[in-house]
Amino acid sequence: MDTKRIEGILLTPLKQIFHPQGDVFHAMKKSDAGFAGFGEAYFSTVRQNEIKAWKKHTQMTLNLIVPLGKIRFVAWDDREGSSTRGCFNEFVLSPQNYARLTIPPMIWLAFEGIDDNNLLLNIANLEHLATEAERKTLAEILYQWE
Amino acid sequence: MDTKRIEGILLTPLKQIFHPQGDVFHAMKKSDAGFAGFGEAYFSTVRQNEIKAWKKHTQMTLNLIVPLGKIRFVAWDDREGSSTRGCFNEFVLSPQNYARLTIPPMIWLAFEGIDDNNLLLNIANLEHLATEAERKTLAEILYQWE
Repeated sequence: MDTKRIEGILLTPLKQIFHPQGDVFHAMKKSDAGFAGFGEAYFSTVRQNEIKAWKKHTQMTLNLIVPLGKIRFVAWDDREGSSTRGCFNEFVLSPQNYARLTIPPMIWLAFEGIDDNNLLLNIANLEHLATEAERKTLAEILYQWE
Repeated sequence: MDTKRIEGILLTPLKQIFHPQGDVFHAMKKSDAGFAGFGEAYFSTVRQNEIKAWKKHTQMTLNLIVPLGKIRFVAWDDREGSSTRGCFNEFVLSPQNYARLTIPPMIWLAFEGIDDNNLLLNIANLEHLATEAERKTLAEILYQWE
């Protein structure tokens, strides 16, 4: 399996400022790499060992941040003409590996909860629109989740 | 003490979509009341019984969401000419009382951690700029924190 970084995906380390009263964790600034406009921000949780399976947004750019728990993301590129067509990329995000994952449109994505409590923030460039996403079941895209 | 809702503060209930694999909690859409543009999103944590004391942003509109734990916010209006000058407002946000709190510029704000783990997302219309915020210690603004 080819594991080159998929064209258009960014992984951007984020600052964490620790303080005895409580910390500050950066998420996104409008001047950051990967910012594609603001349409909507929402949280997703994913239970331990559950996989929220394959979804491809046709227009939305996702900016994903995990402030709690640990989430494994798997991205798959089936774009015609992409230099990384056929590649899978895996990313594990958590407060201990604190970074923002930017997923451009037309990339398939699934994610799995690793810890007891897992929280994901998506800062998207569009408001949610059911018609701009396609779905496949977990079994429809073969990946070694082990 | 007058407890009228401070002029310009909004409390907007947010949708929670429950699912066996993991939930989706709304945070903000660009078409929502209270959206004042996107500059930066960041997380703050606040430890149990700690109070992050008084701060007044002179330009930033805050949009505050609590996806984990429970946080008490206290706002104080000392704006000249405001119809609610002198008022304090208290709000307790949590996933059980899930809403977005919009704080306009020039309002003093402090917040206290109630649960073991408390997480706050701020969707701000400006990138962080140390010079646009003023601070006071907890004792400088008298409030019955009990």
